[in-house]
Amino acid sequence: MKLLEDKIRTEGVVKNGDILKVDSFLNHQMDAGLFRAMAREWKRRFDGLGVNKILTIEASGIGLACIAAEEFGCRAVFAKKSSGSNMDAEVYSTKITSFTKGKVFDVIVSKRFLGPEDRVLILDDFLANGCALEGLMDLVNQAGATLVGCGIAIEKGFQEGGARIRKKGVKLESLAVIVSMSGGEIVFREDGT
Amino acid sequence: MKLLEDKIRTEGVVKNGDILKVDSFLNHQMDAGLFRAMAREWKRRFDGLGVNKILTIEASGIGLACIAAEEFGCRAVFAKKSSGSNMDAEVYSTKITSFTKGKVFDVIVSKRFLGPEDRVLILDDFLANGCALEGLMDLVNQAGATLVGCGIAIEKGFQEGGARIRKKGVKLESLAVIVSMSGGEIVFREDGT
Repeated sequence: MKLLEDKIRTEGVVKNGDILKVDSFLNHQMDAGLFRAMAREWKRRFDGLGVNKILTIEASGIGLACIAAEEFGCRAVFAKKSSGSNMDAEVYSTKITSFTKGKVFDVIVSKRFLGPEDRVLILDDFLANGCALEGLMDLVNQAGATLVGCGIAIEKGFQEGGARIRKKGVKLESLAVIVSMSGGEIVFREDGT
Repeated sequence: MKLLEDKIRTEGVVKNGDILKVDSFLNHQMDAGLFRAMAREWKRRFDGLGVNKILTIEASGIGLACIAAEEFGCRAVFAKKSSGSNMDAEVYSTKITSFTKGKVFDVIVSKRFLGPEDRVLILDDFLANGCALEGLMDLVNQAGATLVGCGIAIEKGFQEGGARIRKKGVKLESLAVIVSMSGGEIVFREDGT
């Protein structure tokens, strides 16, 4: 998606070889107008597939999921990273390793908000090693819901997550796929647009 | 705001006397259509005041902030609860006590996304004791930005936060103010609409 690639080129900063900072528009400060364009693109790519629930994980996916939920005309749910004292006892639960934060999170979704009647589009801001996405797919599976597919803002195509998930037959649509960031120069996969 | 009050009446659940669960539409599952109506109401109440930045805190405020940012035509920023390895060293920082989670969080915003040129509307899902809001106000103050006001979805009017913050002269607009939940019956403040 050219709009997102242009944004990454102009505002993205490569750090320490393989960290891409896009916090001026994606995951600390948020450009809601860009999110709207991205949501419309996901709607185009997943149109007619009966999506009736968006699932993401806190925190960076929430803004994208919320705006996409308006486009799809359905509710969005975000998986939570830990169990607060007013959280349901009745939850689906999985474990997700965050390499950025260097720890393993328990991730939960209330059973009230995910069930066999749901046709789920999973959305997230980044895909690298694929741990977060596979954790969310596990929650969809536990709920007996149908996974329609996964939409990602930025995929690091030089890490293994995307290939592994596509190999399972999952419809995975990344709006920008980075194949290389060496020397700080960001190169996109041409068919990733 | 009648739409929100009706939603709280029909989907809200009172637990253990003073916990209100609204996770079917506000802070676990999210009703983006309702968020849009709420954002328009905040726009009406803060119209003409030059808001050019929305500030919230992860995670529950993010969806609201993102949709409100579209209404105000500005960017949204969410304060983060802990410092990941790819977070800026250059941040404003404050401490917020969460009674729900029973701990104190370090909360940060990158200095790149909040500064003297910003006229800030702080948004959050809940206001009870006011700790989160005062933490966010502290960040605005550290940045030398102008606080235009605060918009809250649900204020627990029987806790002290709202009164204390209004006493400081802050324009605080809560879309639903609950004055009592005793016996599980939710009563709203009439002038809170």
